[in-house]
Order: sequence, then structure tokens, then C-alpha cells
Amino acid sequence: MQSRTVEQHVFDAVSARHDEIIEAVRNLVRIPSVVGSEQTAQKYMADLYRNLPLSVVTLEPDADKLRQLSGYVPGPVPYAGRCNIIATLKGTGGGCSLILNGHCDVVSPEPLDAWTYDPWGAKIDGDRLYGRGAGDMKAGLIANFFALKSILDAGIALNGDVTLQSVIDEEAGGGGGTLACLNAGYTADAMICTEPHSLQVSIAHVGAAFFRIRVTGRSSHIGQAHLSVSAIEKMYPVIQVIRQLDEERARTVHHPLFERTINRSCHLGIGTMRAGDWPATVAGSAEIEGRISFIPGETREAVQKKLEDEVHAAAMKDHWLRAHPPVVEWIGVQTEPWYQDPDHPFVQTFRHAAQDALGQPVFLEGRKAACDARFAASFGMPAACTGPIAGNVHGADEWVDIPSVIATTQVLAKTILRWCGYK
Amino acid sequence: MQSRTVEQHVFDAVSARHDEIIEAVRNLVRIPSVVGSEQTAQKYMADLYRNLPLSVVTLEPDADKLRQLSGYVPGPVPYAGRCNIIATLKGTGGGCSLILNGHCDVVSPEPLDAWTYDPWGAKIDGDRLYGRGAGDMKAGLIANFFALKSILDAGIALNGDVTLQSVIDEEAGGGGGTLACLNAGYTADAMICTEPHSLQVSIAHVGAAFFRIRVTGRSSHIGQAHLSVSAIEKMYPVIQVIRQLDEERARTVHHPLFERTINRSCHLGIGTMRAGDWPATVAGSAEIEGRISFIPGETREAVQKKLEDEVHAAAMKDHWLRAHPPVVEWIGVQTEPWYQDPDHPFVQTFRHAAQDALGQPVFLEGRKAACDARFAASFGMPAACTGPIAGNVHGADEWVDIPSVIATTQVLAKTILRWCGYK
Repeated sequence: MQSRTVEQHVFDAVSARHDEIIEAVRNLVRIPSVVGSEQTAQKYMADLYRNLPLSVVTLEPDADKLRQLSGYVPGPVPYAGRCNIIATLKGTGGGCSLILNGHCDVVSPEPLDAWTYDPWGAKIDGDRLYGRGAGDMKAGLIANFFALKSILDAGIALNGDVTLQSVIDEEAGGGGGTLACLNAGYTADAMICTEPHSLQVSIAHVGAAFFRIRVTGRSSHIGQAHLSVSAIEKMYPVIQVIRQLDEERARTVHHPLFERTINRSCHLGIGTMRAGDWPATVAGSAEIEGRISFIPGETREAVQKKLEDEVHAAAMKDHWLRAHPPVVEWIGVQTEPWYQDPDHPFVQTFRHAAQDALGQPVFLEGRKAACDARFAASFGMPAACTGPIAGNVHGADEWVDIPSVIATTQVLAKTILRWCGYK
Repeated sequence: MQSRTVEQHVFDAVSARHDEIIEAVRNLVRIPSVVGSEQTAQKYMADLYRNLPLSVVTLEPDADKLRQLSGYVPGPVPYAGRCNIIATLKGTGGGCSLILNGHCDVVSPEPLDAWTYDPWGAKIDGDRLYGRGAGDMKAGLIANFFALKSILDAGIALNGDVTLQSVIDEEAGGGGGTLACLNAGYTADAMICTEPHSLQVSIAHVGAAFFRIRVTGRSSHIGQAHLSVSAIEKMYPVIQVIRQLDEERARTVHHPLFERTINRSCHLGIGTMRAGDWPATVAGSAEIEGRISFIPGETREAVQKKLEDEVHAAAMKDHWLRAHPPVVEWIGVQTEPWYQDPDHPFVQTFRHAAQDALGQPVFLEGRKAACDARFAASFGMPAACTGPIAGNVHGADEWVDIPSVIATTQVLAKTILRWCGYK
């Protein structure tokens, strides 16, 4: 067959498997797999992989090895019994190799009462499939498998090796998942992560640093409130300075890849606040937690120091805070930005395959949230992401757009054919 | 003996019992008795009472009866198995009767790491005895007992009945404690509550209403923060309006009894704030809890409406809050102010006895926190409070001043002699 005919044949084969693909996504969404509890989902993925002539291995992360690697993020749950699944197709030789990577772990669906749909129900309503992980990223993980299956079932022999990775721990930073797989030697000439990236091709994401800021007041019974110092009120200068620094960075920090859709490259903001423990006791301490993101070219150290300096400067303007300075800590997730050279042949191949499969322009984008693609750079691998259209990711009533799941599978199949080559 | 000699004899007898009294306070402080877990402390009190020729009864509150009473505050813990102890001395006749009331329940010592001393250690350091409840109000409860014991051990026969009440549930509003005792018929011609009122005589306290205010924002991943609405930031106009209303009320709401020591009659303030649940997710909701206090002459309904109106008016000035108005709820403690006519003969007797016992002026005061004395008014009883000097009440390292515990006992003994009469 001619290339064009082969690609069309596989494209049609994917379309014909529509119901089978979506049913597999639903099966996987129905398996709760929050970080730390991924193994039932991983068994499902391993069973799928064993339907194809792949060599399937399981890999339990080794914390001692991993914590020495740059970019490692320690997760909240020990690794014992939590395995990554790696399934490799040996090519016939002479082509480039490719990893199709996806994570099966999801974030908590709490608060449950915010959901209209059962987070583990995989309910279909119109073009949308609802559930925790439907978009982020069980649909992409299933698309990886069916892209390869559609090629192999058509009797096509690929030249390059293809490796399917179903990993754990991405939502906790990826240290025990993709980083563990790459560090164990499961690398290739390129890697795709099928995050829910709206059928675009992503080649960059921000770095992020989580912080906690504590402010101390002076507690008392509220019947003496005017003789005490409310930590809630004293937190406000800090919140204001964060708002101002966010606005300043929005004006001055620009990276073209990040600005196409929402005209912003980075964010600084607060997610939580906790203060006090009784309505009638003036809060003696208050604590906020938030995240600052930064673009390729900025260093985490400089960004962190800028935030600390601004909070310090705000404190100097307040009599109480000058004597009781806010304490800034860097907690949990601390990740570097990721930037993939757009001129790499893999990126070009991927983008053109996507455009041809979708019949519409595909843009190179940067993303506002980190994903496992950043680990590829440490191993000298080009990487890029694509994936379906999704909404309410990490929120209530998360959904994935069903036609875009099929389209993602087609994009992946076409990319495999062109990048790996075939006979 | 002449009156003067009898009183001096009892005064000296109390002094002579210094170590015994303080050791009893320490024993009681060492028994943790947070609201709902009062029974070990109550057994200790009942055993003490049985050392005197008193009729001792236990009274388990009946929620069904109590909730129909005005002023009832439902507590957080069911009443089953939680008993009040009531010990009555029958007088020889012809005198006025008196209740000496105290509560054995205390508030939680959390956060424990804020304490220098063990909250249940009853450590003495200089003139201070440290521990949760040392001031509020185990010392007063013990003083009640030893005032009566010092009289009876001196062989003095009182004309009027004296009732000792060791009650539960005061910190939760008093519904299951003092209110239950009075409603069961254990009333008298006057009542003293021995709260830690710095050796003054208190005849009024503020009313208080606890509130919760919720603000809704629009949540999102923080990577889209500028398209979302932070509930933490939207809470600030509410906090500001509370601050302004507090300042306005400080200027305009005055009651002479409340202003002697700290020049303030009432307070409006916030104790707690909770918002968001992940550092990298813009908080979709925020909630504050606080308390407004108000003076005799104000009605709770009017004060509550004023707060609601001001919050509403602030919301109208903000585009988002206008469409998503803050929700004000009245939660938990809702108590009325208490005001005892200072010209009542009991108040005069009490104040003069206190001045004579202490050898210094004693002032009539109002207090910024509610106590069980307010229940007396519903039963037509005059009431007043006195008690030792204490600090850090409801906070870490609560303490009571030891000499003032002995002085309180002497004030009480002198008051009993004068009010009840004796032979």
C-alpha cells in the first residue's frame, strides 16, 4: 500500500473501533485510582497490553535511587506495591523509537457533593463522558493503546520500537512514575504524553513552586479584641502584595508559547487560607498556601527570592509585621519549566501528522500546569503532548469530549506510522 | 460571739486552710474535664460535698424540657450520663437562701504546643497555678465549697439554706448545667457564680451571637487564575465592613458598667477563616466565623439585622458579590445580655462584704463574656459574680493567682454569713 492509503486505512480502523475505545475509557474511569491507589487500574492496563504482542514488565519505583535525580518530586505515598506498567513492541529495525506515555493516577474527587455525576460512574451525556480522570488522563492512556492496536491489527510491521507506559504518581509530581521508568532505561528517540491538551501540540510548560506563608498575631478572647492583633487582618497586606506581584508579572513576563489562548504566561496566587480555631477567639495565627509559576528562562531561585523580598518589604511597612515578620516556606511541589525546541524533527513530524489527521491547523502551545513530559529533557529525549478536549479537570464534573478521544487516537496512529516507519 | 468576731474567726479559718484549698484546686485541675467529659471531675466534687452535712443529689439534664426554655443554648454533646451535682445545707430558718454556683467543664487546651506548662499539670510557679480551668473556674468552684466548710467547721449554724452547684456545660452555653438546675427547682433568694472576675463584683455581661459568613468565588486551576474569582480576595470587603462596624459600635455603643477597665462595651470580630483545599486551585469558597456582642438595652434581632445589612451593602458595591451575595448564618452560641439591678439588697450586701473582706474598694462591673449568671434573671433571682484574678483564660498557659483564690473564699464566707444570717 502507499503511505497515504496505509494512513487512511488505519484512520478508518480507529473510527470503526469508536465504541470499543470509549467502552475501554469508561471501564478505566470506573476504577478509582487516586494517587497511591493505582494498582487495580494498572492491572486493567496490563491486561489490555497483553492483548498485543508486547513485552510487558512492571516496575516498582525505588525511592533511594530516585531522590538523587534532579527534578525528582517526593510524593505523599510510599512506593511499595505501586507499579508502573511498561509494554514494548520490538520494531523490525531501521526506524525511530517512540514512547506513548500516560498516567492512570487521578486527583481526589472531593468535595463529592459538588458533583452532579458520579465521579466513578463514567456517565455519557451527549458528546461528553463524565468522571474523575476522564480527561486527565484516562482517555489519553486508552488512546495510546488503541493507536498502536489499530496499526498492528492492520498487519502493519513498524520499523521503530514503540513503548506504552502506564505510570503512577503523576499528580503527585511524577517522581515515582515517568521519572522512574526513564531512569530504569525505558527511553526512546521521542516521547508523547497524552494529556488533555485540546488536540493541540504542547512543547512547554511552566515551572511551579508551592509556598506557605504564616502570619502571627496576638490571640485573646474576642471580648478583648481591640487589645489583640488579628492574624486574619494582618494577612491582608501579604495577600495584597501577592496580588500586586502577580499583576506585575502578568505585565512583564511573557513567553509566546503560553499566550496564544489566554494571554498570560505565568500566575502567582493563593489556593488556601486557614486561621484561628474558635469564633470568639481572635486568631493568633493565619496561614495561606499558593503557587507561583514561571517560564523557561526564569530560575526558580530568582522567582522565589522575588516573592520573599516583596512579602518582606510589605511587612516592613506595618508596625506589627515589622516586629513579627511573615514566614515564607516552600512546600511540596517544586518543578522546573519545560521547553522543547520546536524545530526538532520529531515536533515537526508530530505537528504535521496531527494537522493531517484533524484536517485543521494545529498550534504549538505552552501549558500553565506541569506534566511528566518535562522529565524527557533530562534524558536527552524530545517530547511533546497532545490529547483530547476536556473540561473541569481536577474539579467537579470533569469530562472528556468523546469525538476528540477518537481524533487523538487517530493523531497518535498517524504519528507512530510517520515517526517509526513501517513495512 | 459578736458579728465582727464571727466574721474574723471565719476569715482566719480560711487563711489557715490555705494549703488545703490550693491542693483541692490542683486536684481538680489535674482532672481533664472538657465539655462532655465532666464526670470524673463531678465525682471529685460530689465526694468533697459529702464531707459536709449536705443533701447531695445528681441531676442529668433533660433536653426535651430544656429546649422549650427561653435562653436555652443547645450544646454540642448529648446529656446522657452527664450530671450536675447539687448539695444543699438546710438552714435553721429565718434567713435568706443562697446558691454558690460554679462549672467544672473547661474549653479544649488545644493547640497543646502553645503551652509552656502541662495543661493538666497544676504546676505552681510563684503566686500562679497553671492549668486549663485553673482560673475558669475550678478555683472558684473549690472556693465555694471551702467558704461553706469554714463556716460549718466553726460550728456556726446558718439561718438560710445554702446550695452548692457544680455544673457541666457552661462553656457550651450552660443549657445543660445551671439552666437545668434552676429549672429543676434548685433556686434561692440569690445566686453567686465564682467566675474569675478579679475580685470585683460583676452584675452584667454582654449578649453574644456567633455568626458564619460564606463567600462564593469561582474555582479553577491556578494556571487560569485570572479567569477565576478568588473567594479569599472576595472575603476582604466583608472583613473590612466587619472592622468598620466594630469601630462604629465602639464609638456609639456605651454602657458604664462595661467601660471601667478597657473602655469598650462591645466587640464585633472574626475568630476563624477557612478557604480552599489545594495550593494550586483558586479557592471557590471561603468562610469566616466570629462573634458580635451587645449590651443590655440592645436586642439581638436588631444587632443581627444591622450586621446582615452592612454585609449586604458592602456586597452591593462589588460586581461579583452583587451577583453572588455573601450568606450570613447565626450559629452555635446565641445569648442574651444580663443586667442585675445594682440597687438590689443582695448586690449591696455582696459588695460591702467583699470590700470588708478585701480591705479595698470593690467595683460593680460588666463583663465582655457571657456566663451562667444570666439564667438567674429568668427565675426572678438576683445574681452577681466574683472570683479570683486569672490570666490566659481559654488560652495557653491559663493561670490563677493563688492569694486571690484565698481572698475569694473569704469574700464568699463573709457574704454567706451576712446574707443567710446565723446563730
